[in-house]
Amino acid sequence: MIELAANRYGKAAIRLVRVARGPDGDQLRDLTVAIALEGDFAAAHTDGDNSLVIATDTMKNTAYAFAKTQLDGPLEDYGRALAEHFLEAPQVDVATVNIKGHHWRPIDVSGTPAPDAFVRGGEGTRVATITATRAATTVEAGVEDLVVMKTTRSAFSGFPRDEYTTLSETDDRLMATKLTAIWRYGSPGLDYDRVFDGVRTTLLESFADHDSPSVQTSIWIMARAILESHDEVEEVRMVLPNLHHWLVDLRPFGLENDREIYTPTTEPHGLIEATVRRGDG
Amino acid sequence: MIELAANRYGKAAIRLVRVARGPDGDQLRDLTVAIALEGDFAAAHTDGDNSLVIATDTMKNTAYAFAKTQLDGPLEDYGRALAEHFLEAPQVDVATVNIKGHHWRPIDVSGTPAPDAFVRGGEGTRVATITATRAATTVEAGVEDLVVMKTTRSAFSGFPRDEYTTLSETDDRLMATKLTAIWRYGSPGLDYDRVFDGVRTTLLESFADHDSPSVQTSIWIMARAILESHDEVEEVRMVLPNLHHWLVDLRPFGLENDREIYTPTTEPHGLIEATVRRGDG
Amino acid sequence: MIELAANRYGKAAIRLVRVARGPDGDQLRDLTVAIALEGDFAAAHTDGDNSLVIATDTMKNTAYAFAKTQLDGPLEDYGRALAEHFLEAPQVDVATVNIKGHHWRPIDVSGTPAPDAFVRGGEGTRVATITATRAATTVEAGVEDLVVMKTTRSAFSGFPRDEYTTLSETDDRLMATKLTAIWRYGSPGLDYDRVFDGVRTTLLESFADHDSPSVQTSIWIMARAILESHDEVEEVRMVLPNLHHWLVDLRPFGLENDREIYTPTTEPHGLIEATVRRGDG
Amino acid sequence: MIELAANRYGKAAIRLVRVARGPDGDQLRDLTVAIALEGDFAAAHTDGDNSLVIATDTMKNTAYAFAKTQLDGPLEDYGRALAEHFLEAPQVDVATVNIKGHHWRPIDVSGTPAPDAFVRGGEGTRVATITATRAATTVEAGVEDLVVMKTTRSAFSGFPRDEYTTLSETDDRLMATKLTAIWRYGSPGLDYDRVFDGVRTTLLESFADHDSPSVQTSIWIMARAILESHDEVEEVRMVLPNLHHWLVDLRPFGLENDREIYTPTTEPHGLIEATVRRGDG
Repeated sequence: MIELAANRYGKAAIRLVRVARGPDGDQLRDLTVAIALEGDFAAAHTDGDNSLVIATDTMKNTAYAFAKTQLDGPLEDYGRALAEHFLEAPQVDVATVNIKGHHWRPIDVSGTPAPDAFVRGGEGTRVATITATRAATTVEAGVEDLVVMKTTRSAFSGFPRDEYTTLSETDDRLMATKLTAIWRYGSPGLDYDRVFDGVRTTLLESFADHDSPSVQTSIWIMARAILESHDEVEEVRMVLPNLHHWLVDLRPFGLENDREIYTPTTEPHGLIEATVRRGDG
Repeated sequence: MIELAANRYGKAAIRLVRVARGPDGDQLRDLTVAIALEGDFAAAHTDGDNSLVIATDTMKNTAYAFAKTQLDGPLEDYGRALAEHFLEAPQVDVATVNIKGHHWRPIDVSGTPAPDAFVRGGEGTRVATITATRAATTVEAGVEDLVVMKTTRSAFSGFPRDEYTTLSETDDRLMATKLTAIWRYGSPGLDYDRVFDGVRTTLLESFADHDSPSVQTSIWIMARAILESHDEVEEVRMVLPNLHHWLVDLRPFGLENDREIYTPTTEPHGLIEATVRRGDG
Repeated sequence: MIELAANRYGKAAIRLVRVARGPDGDQLRDLTVAIALEGDFAAAHTDGDNSLVIATDTMKNTAYAFAKTQLDGPLEDYGRALAEHFLEAPQVDVATVNIKGHHWRPIDVSGTPAPDAFVRGGEGTRVATITATRAATTVEAGVEDLVVMKTTRSAFSGFPRDEYTTLSETDDRLMATKLTAIWRYGSPGLDYDRVFDGVRTTLLESFADHDSPSVQTSIWIMARAILESHDEVEEVRMVLPNLHHWLVDLRPFGLENDREIYTPTTEPHGLIEATVRRGDG
Repeated sequence: MIELAANRYGKAAIRLVRVARGPDGDQLRDLTVAIALEGDFAAAHTDGDNSLVIATDTMKNTAYAFAKTQLDGPLEDYGRALAEHFLEAPQVDVATVNIKGHHWRPIDVSGTPAPDAFVRGGEGTRVATITATRAATTVEAGVEDLVVMKTTRSAFSGFPRDEYTTLSETDDRLMATKLTAIWRYGSPGLDYDRVFDGVRTTLLESFADHDSPSVQTSIWIMARAILESHDEVEEVRMVLPNLHHWLVDLRPFGLENDREIYTPTTEPHGLIEATVRRGDG
């Protein structure tokens, strides 16, 4: 007896750019959208019956059409409109829309922002995930690939030593990470752009502002700062690779290296994940 | 009231090569290992107390040491030895080891395999994930990034049409995917290399051998074939991007294009996921 | 008769971070360095004679040591010190040092730059290439991966039409590119950081400020602007992929798309390269 | 006086798949094509005059159309047809076509190759570059990203030691590289598939079969073997990163590591390049 268990399907990597043209210059939005559906799709698997299978090409078209009609505001509202649209199909139980927003800013020309020329850049990527069911719609926001470094005030000591331990304790290491932070909002209808900016600022400021005894504690401190400063946020999930920077031994060259020259590495790296949330008290 | 919820940490991207030297030539193993632990790590987050935090550097060292002592057999046995080692620490509740095995074969020299020279290649990457708790150890195996194509016998029709649907029905499209298939074994102590080869063969043969009305049905057919042919497997999880290949319109150039010239694309792509398992009957 | 022709060797992807610690906060430099040597290395190839082969590991060590002693100023000066160091070995005829400078800025905390916490970002990567021979040292600087877009004032028309031409003429397309611009300085000993900032500003401003009839003309206009504004620059080499953004056809959905919703693509892309220089006049 | 110097333009990353359907099964070709033109394009730069600018979109269309009509044989012949087509335009002086051929093989089903199902894989990528001028057409072929390793018979000693040298001499290291080899044919009209297979075999066999005192010598030995065995080849250009594999120190764990456990690295890496050719004797 063989059976179908969890399944979902959708369209990923839908790329779109929207230029809103106005008298004071163009507004530029650059998104990568992924849509996934769960629901009554067993017959599509076991019987080759596509009568309930909304084509992923249709999802793509819908993302483009809604970019025209539903993208005046924050990307969370666009994602919500998309998710709730797909939930109108009775066979759909869960519609999930994930959006990455790529950052562009107007180019400065002699101190004035150009109305029609932009440069891509930014620090990390803004993301939003909207999950809609008939019972509720969940909105998560966050940043991915935000690369940050503390050049001091980071330690790691007091850890257990066994026969495979060679790492020295340190009270002053360099801490670097490519941070992902995703937070879940407790209620709908927020001013998502404003809240996003606020949470991101808290994230960066709390990263800069604390003494770190470990990446684990840093996650706790940053997530707690977000929850304490932003009532809209119910939960914060963080993933921090520990991108090791090793002090180079310059003694063979007659040079001292007092926390000055490091070699950054990516393989291997630590990987620390935790979720912090409001509890029942 | 703010509280720590799910958390885990470990070392990722541990790269190692093992050369087992013998009279008939060298055996080469090339692995990327990731280790993650869950357990009593709350104090590390909330109190900056590292006394229970096994350093990720120690994990790396252990992976290297066990590569010397525990890697004569399949990578599942190496992963199990590592996972169970970390479970010996009382603060650890779950130890997960993920291993990717990169494929090398001896270079042929005039029809004879070289004893000491190898070329990397292969089709997809072998993976294994071992999850150990005090109650049980779970072994999953699989392949990632296995790129396959059906040049005919793939259709997609009968799907619903709404105001955003423009896709034509087709009874003969090209289907291409970069397949991930992960299967869970029901019992420990298997001849993992032999079973892996068998499952992989079933996967490829069933991909080649069926008429596909949709990617969903293809997943079902391949997963069911694995479960029917391999009693050791309890469950198969598959992720298939649908890497669209569009027929090029050659009519402007006075040429017919009867399913001959396609342009492959990666953005956007369909993304179809399902788990198929033995049920209770 | 088989002979050795052009050859060179070196060390690439040398990663290093330098933290200059001061009372007002840390200065952070993050570089990727590549060193290549040409010269009397024939015996290393044809005779297996390494007596003149400066080990690439030695090059790496030298890059680290010079990061301690020679990196107070612009990366061009550091690169020059390295290149001229290797040229001291009599077997070396040409020493080339390529440096990429990765951008970090101090994190703002309540309006004040943190002294010891940084975020990586920026728009494009600064590069410098120093080529030293006994006759001369050449300094090139530039930017790579600078992603820019013009949302209007870009056209492409008047091109020839043959039997394979289907592209429509357009007087208003979106132009996007990931720009590489490398410029050669005419004399040594410049204030490289200041000049770099000036050239980069000219590049961005001239990109924003012109009407483009083609990518070719855009290159000419930007390169000429650099040469006209910066006497220090002798030559500008530019490589611009044309990252096409296609207007989405929204008519099937009853929507107009007046230069508003585009789908960005990367495959295929145009690729336009040109060098512009001061002539003999 | 500012002037245009070297310039060229074209279309890159043209992706195409060709399925030749026959009674005994399908033949699958998967190519990435890049086309570049040089010639009388000054006015396009300096005057915004596109009257001679063959649109890169037209190049793409031509690549697709010729895939229908000119791709029965080796990719070198397809590339040549394309290059010579573009040279028919009087404003074109040089047409360069670069082709990468991605490897697929039929899936085995119970020992028989499937007629219509394929798996992508292979070892390295086959490439061809055809450069056509009115004077001559040059055909280069080669392989890229061919990852190979020697587990013994590789040494590096006798190199000079200066104040920055710390590397130990070794008579038995592991040598790994991701090899690029490009060879130029002396005459046109070859059986390119057969010659390619022969040169590639010589390359791999000579890699496997020699004792290496350095990467430089390995390049010489492999390139010379190709020139000695294949009269069709005039010149071989090789680029070999030296992907270092460092012996792990297992002594802290009470274990010996006699050339058994290595950690592979990619940053930094050596980078060795040389061209070997037939000389005038």
